[in-house]
Amino acid sequence: MAGTVEKPLAPSYQEVPGGITAPRGFRAAGLHIGVKRFRKDLALVVSDVRAAAAATFTTNRVQAAPVRVTREHIQGGYLRAIVCNSGNANACNGPQGVHDARRMAELTAAALGAAPGEIAVASTGVIGVPLPMDKIAAGIEQAVHLLSREGGDDAAHAIMTTDTFPKQVAIEFELKGKTVRIGAMAKGSGMIHPNMATMLAFIATDAAIEPAALQSVMRRSVERTYNRISVDGDTSTNDMAVIMANGMAGHEPLSLGDPELETFAAALDYVNGVLARAIARDGEGATKLIEIRVVGAPTEADAVQIGRSISRSNLVKTAIYGEDANWGRILCAAGYSGADFDPERVDVYIGDLLVCQDGTGLAFDEQRAKEILKQSDVAVTVDLKAGSAEATVWTCDLTYDYIKINGSYRT
Amino acid sequence: MAGTVEKPLAPSYQEVPGGITAPRGFRAAGLHIGVKRFRKDLALVVSDVRAAAAATFTTNRVQAAPVRVTREHIQGGYLRAIVCNSGNANACNGPQGVHDARRMAELTAAALGAAPGEIAVASTGVIGVPLPMDKIAAGIEQAVHLLSREGGDDAAHAIMTTDTFPKQVAIEFELKGKTVRIGAMAKGSGMIHPNMATMLAFIATDAAIEPAALQSVMRRSVERTYNRISVDGDTSTNDMAVIMANGMAGHEPLSLGDPELETFAAALDYVNGVLARAIARDGEGATKLIEIRVVGAPTEADAVQIGRSISRSNLVKTAIYGEDANWGRILCAAGYSGADFDPERVDVYIGDLLVCQDGTGLAFDEQRAKEILKQSDVAVTVDLKAGSAEATVWTCDLTYDYIKINGSYRT
Repeated sequence: MAGTVEKPLAPSYQEVPGGITAPRGFRAAGLHIGVKRFRKDLALVVSDVRAAAAATFTTNRVQAAPVRVTREHIQGGYLRAIVCNSGNANACNGPQGVHDARRMAELTAAALGAAPGEIAVASTGVIGVPLPMDKIAAGIEQAVHLLSREGGDDAAHAIMTTDTFPKQVAIEFELKGKTVRIGAMAKGSGMIHPNMATMLAFIATDAAIEPAALQSVMRRSVERTYNRISVDGDTSTNDMAVIMANGMAGHEPLSLGDPELETFAAALDYVNGVLARAIARDGEGATKLIEIRVVGAPTEADAVQIGRSISRSNLVKTAIYGEDANWGRILCAAGYSGADFDPERVDVYIGDLLVCQDGTGLAFDEQRAKEILKQSDVAVTVDLKAGSAEATVWTCDLTYDYIKINGSYRT
Repeated sequence: MAGTVEKPLAPSYQEVPGGITAPRGFRAAGLHIGVKRFRKDLALVVSDVRAAAAATFTTNRVQAAPVRVTREHIQGGYLRAIVCNSGNANACNGPQGVHDARRMAELTAAALGAAPGEIAVASTGVIGVPLPMDKIAAGIEQAVHLLSREGGDDAAHAIMTTDTFPKQVAIEFELKGKTVRIGAMAKGSGMIHPNMATMLAFIATDAAIEPAALQSVMRRSVERTYNRISVDGDTSTNDMAVIMANGMAGHEPLSLGDPELETFAAALDYVNGVLARAIARDGEGATKLIEIRVVGAPTEADAVQIGRSISRSNLVKTAIYGEDANWGRILCAAGYSGADFDPERVDVYIGDLLVCQDGTGLAFDEQRAKEILKQSDVAVTVDLKAGSAEATVWTCDLTYDYIKINGSYRT
């Protein structure tokens, strides 16, 4: 029933080094160009050949300029490169912002000998400050010269904002008789919530997949991974997840309806799941990864709705920070989720410890609860006993450092 | 456009002392009975004569035992008394909880010579711990002997949990040629969010009003006041707002359709508005009251939806704690509210300072912004420029002390 955190969403895969440059035919660079004061702030990921591409974007009504531009470019179904700056979100900058985002694509395309529509553009950072385009232009020029097969790690660093560690993973698996790789990097930290919150994820694979099939598996995978994490419930203006599949593994391309598409989809879920959990673990100020599993639900949608409500509760998140087995707050957050369930049937587990049965508190072993809550990974299971559907969402605890980080970010 | 906080919802009224015992024919007591360790924890408010009554309750699926019992009792349309303990929520205690809540009503009724169905029961505090009924029983007995016309203040103290100050107000105004009074008390602090969150409000008036008319104005007033505040977005299992109108002002009773009912409704809005803002100001750990006004909206519902989304944003609340004019977070929270609007028309004001025009940042006077944000009352105005509807919601900043208070509440 309850228990371990980070149960993989799919069978385990062979992890390999190299991050986003692990698959064949991808090169990357990450460098400091002066948007941020000291740290790396420009990442470039390039496929040697044109790659099928797909993307998902923030659902916020306020969409940053790079989101608008990349949304247009992805319509073509193919990309050559992704260019991303950190330190400045290029959001709420009016027509100038869109102009600057287009210019980023044009400069990158020119330097690579590609078309502007083959470039995805992303930005993350402060809202409402125009991009320093002179620095961006010089930086793109420089980045192209730094591109290498070992550049994945630099690129993963360059997209960070308040992230405390880079997030990357790469795996190798068999597909249509060939060895294929998926490599990926992401950034998260604040403003993380379902439906793509200041969250960027870039995925590269040498698998061969038609754009429509890629869009289909990507959308479903994002729904199950990045859209099931929450740091503070805020959904940003800049989120996107972009995947490029360049086909250099050399197998027959996967299209919609191909049974092997599920093999790829499972591998993609694994990669996105690892990054999603890393983002939740690295939520601003977080000390713990919290996994909330809602089981025994009538439908998966109910389970997700209840899980998200619990994952957004400041009271639950502070209680877990305080290592307090306050199941009442968990049940309460389930109660205001809007999902229909019978509170008098609900069981709540902290780790594998049953603390509330049929909606009523148990005299549980407080010492054991303390031990479970002391861990850096805490699992909470809510069993509705009303069906067989389930869902897992991830969040982090809410701490003094969240306040510290966010009380003085802009200035 | 923008500017002062706490603009009354209605013309100002003559405030009078006495809190909930200010109106004729109400007596109250507040005392320490040992549910909490040291502080007052039982409040009793009694009308000398049977009073018309109305109430609204939490929308949480998990409803504490006293909510269920009071919901039944209020069906009758009349009450004699409200009994409320703090320190224990009597929530998630299974059938025993409901039995205990009924017993609280029975004991109070017996001591007053009333029927159990004429007693409203409320509890607030820790979830999942059975009520100490021996203390409650002895306490009710004692409370009945302490009832007095000056007991309002003691009662207001006895319903507090993590509140840092008691919340009460009383006003006097003319109605149907008579001088009438409304007196009220409330408690709030954590878990405050629209739709009645760990929030109790008790209102007494000597106006004469039919139960159906009273229910109608009460529901509308709660929607405009308590349902427009948010401390942390959590909606509790125990919230209720109860009003008793005992008619001792001696005027002809108001019924539905009476034009003077609006005179009463406006006064009730004033009283509930004062208490709602006091609750927001006293949010756990709060240092500032934040008033969010959304104007120029196509409908009031849109304005409320956007205002609530902003009021729930941890990023907005920490920015204001940090006295940072981070309008990007405000616009961003409007963007994910789910309401439909054109981000490129939106103006944002901090106090009376325009910081974002047509969705684009302005080079505003940072010094002036700092001065505005240094105040204990901060007004934020979002102008959608898309209509003439508006709404105001209230929240507080998110601070280190919120984490401190909620990281170790239960244990």
